[in-house]
Amino acid sequence: MAAALAVAERGRGRTAPNPNVGCVIVRQGRVVGRGWTQPGGRPHAEAMALAQAGDAARGATAYVTLEPCAHESPRGPACADLLVGAGVARVVAALRDPDPRTDGTGLARLQDAGIQVDSGILAAEARRSMAGFLTRQALGRPLVTLKLATSLDGCIALASGESKWITGPQARAHAHLERARHDAILVGRGTFLADSPKLDVRLPGLEDRAPRRILLSATGPTPPGWERIADMGDVRGLRAVDHLMVEGGASAASAFLRADMVDRLLLYRAPILIGGGKAAIEAFGLATLSEAHDRWRLTDSRLLGSDRFEVYERN
Amino acid sequence: MAAALAVAERGRGRTAPNPNVGCVIVRQGRVVGRGWTQPGGRPHAEAMALAQAGDAARGATAYVTLEPCAHESPRGPACADLLVGAGVARVVAALRDPDPRTDGTGLARLQDAGIQVDSGILAAEARRSMAGFLTRQALGRPLVTLKLATSLDGCIALASGESKWITGPQARAHAHLERARHDAILVGRGTFLADSPKLDVRLPGLEDRAPRRILLSATGPTPPGWERIADMGDVRGLRAVDHLMVEGGASAASAFLRADMVDRLLLYRAPILIGGGKAAIEAFGLATLSEAHDRWRLTDSRLLGSDRFEVYERN
Repeated sequence: MAAALAVAERGRGRTAPNPNVGCVIVRQGRVVGRGWTQPGGRPHAEAMALAQAGDAARGATAYVTLEPCAHESPRGPACADLLVGAGVARVVAALRDPDPRTDGTGLARLQDAGIQVDSGILAAEARRSMAGFLTRQALGRPLVTLKLATSLDGCIALASGESKWITGPQARAHAHLERARHDAILVGRGTFLADSPKLDVRLPGLEDRAPRRILLSATGPTPPGWERIADMGDVRGLRAVDHLMVEGGASAASAFLRADMVDRLLLYRAPILIGGGKAAIEAFGLATLSEAHDRWRLTDSRLLGSDRFEVYERN
Repeated sequence: MAAALAVAERGRGRTAPNPNVGCVIVRQGRVVGRGWTQPGGRPHAEAMALAQAGDAARGATAYVTLEPCAHESPRGPACADLLVGAGVARVVAALRDPDPRTDGTGLARLQDAGIQVDSGILAAEARRSMAGFLTRQALGRPLVTLKLATSLDGCIALASGESKWITGPQARAHAHLERARHDAILVGRGTFLADSPKLDVRLPGLEDRAPRRILLSATGPTPPGWERIADMGDVRGLRAVDHLMVEGGASAASAFLRADMVDRLLLYRAPILIGGGKAAIEAFGLATLSEAHDRWRLTDSRLLGSDRFEVYERN
């Protein structure tokens, strides 16, 4: 299952509205097929792994990070039927699929066909891996990650607007890797006008992984190559965006916080002081300090060069 | 020597204008005396350790974190003479004393009396231990520590002024311990008026270690129990203050940064977002981002409860 979760990561940020699933097929102790949801959502992980395994799938065990789907679509048959047809002996699933078209039906169909079914293996890790899809299923909106690159005193730029660079090359490379794992990046109009951000992925081998670019702006034109949403109500309507990264600026950050739509914080903090610079976040409606506490928990922390990188997730 | 450095810490923040020295006397593998500079600077560490050792000092080795002083004063005899008189066989010193009244004369007097002398042992650790005294000797001013307790977005209070509490109980207890290691704490008038800070040490057994309280304010009265300085020029003139902690607010912090008088940063950072709050530091004259880099290096980092504690020292 750990191997299935690892290959599932390859699709993260490219499979929406489908989940990024991973599948590994093992027969007599040997891996005979591996698959992960392909860009755009098809083929599914199981279909790819079964195609690789061919006849070797007969009598094998399929490890899959999400319950195989039970619904046919114009884009392909149901994975539960594919697994039955291939003659696998056992299916191990990490999570039940909350999609109402499956939601237990997939596992039931496998059992009805005489296949041994186990589920709930590495469920917490699978939930983290497919957090974007699961957030969409549960809340009807993307998983939102707010990225901040600040000085020790919480500034994202000098008062003059100068912001290149606060963090060092290792932190910036890491931020580009995070971009590649998101379906779309959003900035506010102020950041768009000030920085003309390209929001591309400048990492060798990942140049084609640039996510879609979304401008949050109530008015004004939609720049070529961009999509535009007018307000927070439009976030739910973003099509095929399950992982959204908010990259700036302080006004866009506060709009998402005010709407209680931030699930993860990525903080890159450089060992510099700015003093009287641009704050990272505008007011978002906090009335008292007690409201601010117990909302975030640290889930990752390390040094990237001389910058500290931290991930916080909402409680 | 490590043991001598450990006892030297007991005096930190209480011995100015004298250095906080530690001394351990060892005879035939047994510790026969330990001493550290007493509050106010006298007795010196060597005098205390020798008094403890008594006759056992004859033929023993004295480990001392700073060259024994060579100058008599009305407050006591020179430690070099005391060591000679006690008949120690060997003196191991970490650092030469930069005070022009000693500056090599102490070690020379010991050697002239036939005592074996070694120096430079754990010199870097001793420099750190006596950084306040050494800064005063080298720069004619105290070692200045700027303490900041902020949210993840660098705020020290809500826009309303509410600042109790940003950090948790473990971080606040640690900050009180740091207070006990400083001769004096300074705040600006804004913080004095807003918070009426007591600046005491609320830790069991250390209640009597409250440092002197200094108000940075060009005008206005000097509150009872406080000292007042009018501007940064007065920092050099602070008597018997070798370790000064600046505790707030943003204006006092920027005054010290503008004067390039901050040697250490203590950062306590809580896992909360405030948004549009009071910034930790006002503008201090930074013109470009490149000036901000390479000034600080991380020397300590850990979690205190759910808050991150970091120490930065100037490069």
